[in-house]
Amino acid sequence: MTKLTIAEMDRIAREDVPGVGQTGIVFEAIEDGLVRARLPFHVDSLRPGGTVSGPTMMGLADLVMYACVLSRIGIVKMAVTTNLNANFLRLPGAVDLIAEGRLIKCGRRLAYGEVTITSDGEPDEAVCHVTITYSIPPR
Amino acid sequence: MTKLTIAEMDRIAREDVPGVGQTGIVFEAIEDGLVRARLPFHVDSLRPGGTVSGPTMMGLADLVMYACVLSRIGIVKMAVTTNLNANFLRLPGAVDLIAEGRLIKCGRRLAYGEVTITSDGEPDEAVCHVTITYSIPPR
Amino acid sequence: MTKLTIAEMDRIAREDVPGVGQTGIVFEAIEDGLVRARLPFHVDSLRPGGTVSGPTMMGLADLVMYACVLSRIGIVKMAVTTNLNANFLRLPGAVDLIAEGRLIKCGRRLAYGEVTITSDGEPDEAVCHVTITYSIPPR
Amino acid sequence: MTKLTIAEMDRIAREDVPGVGQTGIVFEAIEDGLVRARLPFHVDSLRPGGTVSGPTMMGLADLVMYACVLSRIGIVKMAVTTNLNANFLRLPGAVDLIAEGRLIKCGRRLAYGEVTITSDGEPDEAVCHVTITYSIPPR
Repeated sequence: MTKLTIAEMDRIAREDVPGVGQTGIVFEAIEDGLVRARLPFHVDSLRPGGTVSGPTMMGLADLVMYACVLSRIGIVKMAVTTNLNANFLRLPGAVDLIAEGRLIKCGRRLAYGEVTITSDGEPDEAVCHVTITYSIPPR
Repeated sequence: MTKLTIAEMDRIAREDVPGVGQTGIVFEAIEDGLVRARLPFHVDSLRPGGTVSGPTMMGLADLVMYACVLSRIGIVKMAVTTNLNANFLRLPGAVDLIAEGRLIKCGRRLAYGEVTITSDGEPDEAVCHVTITYSIPPR
Repeated sequence: MTKLTIAEMDRIAREDVPGVGQTGIVFEAIEDGLVRARLPFHVDSLRPGGTVSGPTMMGLADLVMYACVLSRIGIVKMAVTTNLNANFLRLPGAVDLIAEGRLIKCGRRLAYGEVTITSDGEPDEAVCHVTITYSIPPR
Repeated sequence: MTKLTIAEMDRIAREDVPGVGQTGIVFEAIEDGLVRARLPFHVDSLRPGGTVSGPTMMGLADLVMYACVLSRIGIVKMAVTTNLNANFLRLPGAVDLIAEGRLIKCGRRLAYGEVTITSDGEPDEAVCHVTITYSIPPR
């Protein structure tokens, strides 16, 4: 069972991670180790070519994995990213992005998982695939 | 010799990559395949722990490598990131970040390099090390 | 439908990739974009701690992704790895390893996918998770 | 000053990591956090195209970074790789490979560094660039 509710994650995103959290990200589902979020399209996210920038997608993925980790271990805000590897597979259009995260391993000190990002309306075509390691502080 | 001036890169950052470019990034030096930039500290870049967020550093690194690539091939705006791998080594404090990028390879279709980020005043202690691949469109 | 049979892949592994292919790897299933293989335990794969070495797992993953790519595009031997990112999640014991690969994207020039490795008998505990990009030559 | 001699590393490679260590790798220089090694060309390392296989280069890089870590912390055999990210930049010919490793950070629990591989005789053209994280056990 998840140890993090959508309302809790909304507040964390807005208050604790202002740069990414105030982009309007909507957490649509949070289960134990599984999170889905939507990033509404915003013109500030564009880069040349009329496509959403890489950093926008990496910020989205990082926050989704943060939610995945907290859904398993509870609200441990000092969990921090140690590695993030992003592969950009297609140029998304100027539409909302959907990110689905999944914990692959959650140990005592390290958590690891993957996030797949698609364009809204094209669920079978990944635009970005990200793997992320979080370090969990001693509790 | 560089094919990109600081003035040109300033304009590209501001006009074409608003999300990252309007964070106040200052390009301090651009030579052929070598770029140094400073990201002034801003409270919006924080994450829990009073430290600069990972996505802030990845956005900085991605833009510095973009400048590295353009310094070699000229202003080809549709060069796009295909892979970015970031390792977060230390938590930076609430200070300016310095990013130094270096092209390792620039072929006809792919460019690859690394960016090392340090906290201002601590040049020997990397806080983040990033490797990035850019895809170069046919010209 | 797969464009690569198990018999074809066995021969490619044995004849064309001797270092990895002659370790006794068994391709158990090859479908379009999906491959499962088994690496029998061998004492030469050990590293300190009585555990299988990282390079052994990366060689296994790389060959499984090669099979995934060929299952989609046919036998194009000059498809080559351009990026491999491996995360080691648990120390496997001295047992067979099972690798399951899945193509996430296969474009005209680049293919990308993931491989999950588990210890035989523990299918729910990933020991290694690998993402790999292959470059496909013009045909 | 290095805490690992060439003679000690030769023995570790040969006895403890047979799969990679018995490929004939020669450690040419070991200083504190800096290691250079040569991998003599061997026909078993080939893959289609007459070029050295990716796993051969990853095994070389992993062992060189292992030596970098031990040169700093002493002989702690249970240091283990947690992440390895390899970018393959050029196809090496059928010649010896030279690998140069450099520790970027060595903390109490994690060490991180990079390895650049070139073909013998072409020191300015990286064929492979690898970043590696090692986990250091409590002592």
